Amino acid sequence: MTAVHLDAWYVTGIVEGEGSFCVSFNHRSRLNVGIETRPSFSITLSERDRALIELLQDYFKCGAIRYSRADRTYKFEVRSVEEIVTRVVPQFRRYPLRGSKRNDFELFALICALIQQRRHLDPNGLREIIELAFQMNPSGKRRLAKDELLRVLEKVKV
Amino acid sequence: MTAVHLDAWYVTGIVEGEGSFCVSFNHRSRLNVGIETRPSFSITLSERDRALIELLQDYFKCGAIRYSRADRTYKFEVRSVEEIVTRVVPQFRRYPLRGSKRNDFELFALICALIQQRRHLDPNGLREIIELAFQMNPSGKRRLAKDELLRVLEKVKV
Repeated sequence: MTAVHLDAWYVTGIVEGEGSFCVSFNHRSRLNVGIETRPSFSITLSERDRALIELLQDYFKCGAIRYSRADRTYKFEVRSVEEIVTRVVPQFRRYPLRGSKRNDFELFALICALIQQRRHLDPNGLREIIELAFQMNPSGKRRLAKDELLRVLEKVKV
Repeated sequence: MTAVHLDAWYVTGIVEGEGSFCVSFNHRSRLNVGIETRPSFSITLSERDRALIELLQDYFKCGAIRYSRADRTYKFEVRSVEEIVTRVVPQFRRYPLRGSKRNDFELFALICALIQQRRHLDPNGLREIIELAFQMNPSGKRRLAKDELLRVLEKVKV
């Protein structure tokens, strides 16, 4: 097979359908705020589309690919905030999403900028991040409810 | 909201994820071959993306939009063979799909060309169309099995 070039607008189009901008939270007692913030950009495709997932990884020049045996899908995922800010966010600034996913992207980009400023490590910054994250369209079930997260923050000594 | 222009590659990208090329068959005793052949090109999006579905209809300049209350989705669908051949097929010739859906598209385009030549109205042509259609990736359950369709054709007086 010859090398196929993915057009930038094609990439935005496929992300409109199959992409996900997600910010998740986990308990982490070793952190002062007690909560870890994890942003993730991903694209999930059927196992038939392994070659295409690899082309998408080549396009973004970062991230990892994982196979889900349960779903029979390949997921391309970028978790590094540095890579999200330098490689993922600029794509959707230049070639914007046209549907409701754009709202998720804007919140996601804002949250990642706050994380870069290390705001997720102080209770007030993290509270803001949690409020923004819960405005995003829920993709799947959240492990921790918003109230539960905010209750953890109330206990933090500032 | 200002008018948004959908880029041609964006449209191919969203179809890679959310589009469907489908050929279905139904019993029709009033037809000589006993079977009706129905091609359909569609794009299905969440009800949040009604505006985007309308932009996609504007882009293709044909088809209809339907709401599914059960799935809470909007579907843009083109069923007219004439419109498929003149408006849908050229899009994916100029801006080709990059994933496994391309195989479905190629079979779909071939079947629609055969329908335009009225091959679906004679048993041999229809047999060929059925064989091609069953090489497509099944989207949802087929109402009629391939063997059942071919058995109907065996009974047709040529």
